[in-house]
Amino acid sequence: MFIDDAYAHLYSLSLQGLGVSTPNPNVSAAIYGKDGSLISDGFHNRKVSVDHAEVVALKKAGSAARGATMVISLEPCAHTGTTPPCVQAIIDAGIAKVIYAVADPNPIAAGGAQKLADAGIVVEHRESAELNFVQRAWLHKELTGRPLMIWKVATTLDSKVAASDGTSQWITGPESREDVQELRAQSDAILIGTNTALVDNPHLIPRGHEARPVRVICGEQEVPATNKVFDNEARTIVVKSKSIPELIKVLSDEGFNQVLVEAGPTLGSALMASGKIDELIVYQAPKMLGAGKEFVSHLGISTLNDHLKLQLLGVQPFGGDIKSHYLVKGR
Amino acid sequence: MFIDDAYAHLYSLSLQGLGVSTPNPNVSAAIYGKDGSLISDGFHNRKVSVDHAEVVALKKAGSAARGATMVISLEPCAHTGTTPPCVQAIIDAGIAKVIYAVADPNPIAAGGAQKLADAGIVVEHRESAELNFVQRAWLHKELTGRPLMIWKVATTLDSKVAASDGTSQWITGPESREDVQELRAQSDAILIGTNTALVDNPHLIPRGHEARPVRVICGEQEVPATNKVFDNEARTIVVKSKSIPELIKVLSDEGFNQVLVEAGPTLGSALMASGKIDELIVYQAPKMLGAGKEFVSHLGISTLNDHLKLQLLGVQPFGGDIKSHYLVKGR
Repeated sequence: MFIDDAYAHLYSLSLQGLGVSTPNPNVSAAIYGKDGSLISDGFHNRKVSVDHAEVVALKKAGSAARGATMVISLEPCAHTGTTPPCVQAIIDAGIAKVIYAVADPNPIAAGGAQKLADAGIVVEHRESAELNFVQRAWLHKELTGRPLMIWKVATTLDSKVAASDGTSQWITGPESREDVQELRAQSDAILIGTNTALVDNPHLIPRGHEARPVRVICGEQEVPATNKVFDNEARTIVVKSKSIPELIKVLSDEGFNQVLVEAGPTLGSALMASGKIDELIVYQAPKMLGAGKEFVSHLGISTLNDHLKLQLLGVQPFGGDIKSHYLVKGR
Repeated sequence: MFIDDAYAHLYSLSLQGLGVSTPNPNVSAAIYGKDGSLISDGFHNRKVSVDHAEVVALKKAGSAARGATMVISLEPCAHTGTTPPCVQAIIDAGIAKVIYAVADPNPIAAGGAQKLADAGIVVEHRESAELNFVQRAWLHKELTGRPLMIWKVATTLDSKVAASDGTSQWITGPESREDVQELRAQSDAILIGTNTALVDNPHLIPRGHEARPVRVICGEQEVPATNKVFDNEARTIVVKSKSIPELIKVLSDEGFNQVLVEAGPTLGSALMASGKIDELIVYQAPKMLGAGKEFVSHLGISTLNDHLKLQLLGVQPFGGDIKSHYLVKGR
């Protein structure tokens, strides 16, 4: 079906917009001729231009946009921000029909669909679970006022992140560690605690990617300026506090859509216990230690019925490891 | 392809033989006409008859076996045990061609293929990973002298089998618990420690199945005769010892092909540390506790490089849980 193919195409475009559209949504757009053939497409990439996805696609299409159908991952904006409203550009270009996947939850930018219809354009709103998912970080930020927080852990089969002598490199295999680079590149910031900074001295730059997410170090311990996280490859923010609300305020004020939490058990568990972890991605290696440091602790739960609930989004073998992705549902 | 279809059919038959062929292998056999159509089939079911799979299929086929092709999951036996050798029955029935998947590793029973060939039957040995897998418990016993030991655990996402107040029912969902009944029914014995018997008072009878595997209780604590494991629904063996070699000797002497270990951390870890767990099946629930009893402990490992190695055989979502199946490779 036309719309399934078009949405699959938008999904692949919006994936490319992850990490480069912030603080805006990773919107994608495509323009199709009357015969269903693709005329042009685009996604919002702030590293390249302030143009929204719709304008990127319209500029590529030129006069071919007249009478054509535009498919967009998000309802086009109706307000003037850094750029003029996309709805006006769509009307001016002579687009005949617009199909969009996600309604804009932002009260300032919303109303775009109505304005298009008022201008005589045929407008369809067709939901898409995939396009909701790929744009969920920005949607989450719009709805909650803070970024989507994804905690990534690499554990043994018995949930250890280090052996009892402290050794921890490497627990998971090369495929999993490569996948983490991708997660980093799609995120606006990478968060660790001062303990991880001191013990592992990680660089946190996504190897093999151009993306340079902001590094955020949270905690009260002093981290030497010579540590790798303080080099010039990316910006680094220090939140010298153990206060979770203070940390969340900094991340929200920055306008991040998505924060990848690569914290150890102390900071990770504190965020989890205070309801600030939205998703959990576990890379589980086919190894057992029987002792050592567990990936989570101190949730303040003592009986089974009080367990913290999660929902499995997906699971797949990954090299010899298992990658599982969960939504955190809370207590 | 003919052989792929025939082997897929044998696989489904051998699955049915799990738990009912012991101490013999769960062999399956099928007889096909010259046009490739199925004439008859069978698997070894000691609950029904002493007849081996080949004889079950031959009796069903009658005179139709003459000139036909027999496909068998294991090389047919050449020796007289409880029953006369299958090779003689195959020769007498006038089978023209035999294809078998697994060579008999038992020096007493082996040589069947050669005897068939000597009698003028066309014999093909074609390996099959699937038929090796489904018959692996008996093959393991033949090669090592002890049953295949599969440890099944039901854990939270953070590897807990009980909360810190001891509550543990139920961690996993109904689909996983139903699947455990199937695992029990395919096993010859279910092993638990005395601590599990005392704390959980499990019945260990596979609900919804006719199979009645032997229950084995191992440990030095006294378990009251009124506990559910001592009812009359199945035989129960008590190994009043903490000695792993002593336990393994009892299980081996019984002739079990496959033992399902449903032990807690103490007995489970002791078996794992001494190399007596061959496979691990984990049902992992989308729940976190952050504290409580871990499924494994005391492996005697203090540094990452000494980790116990496993190999992922398969992983799948199971209800909201994840079921993963590992081969234990050792240190």
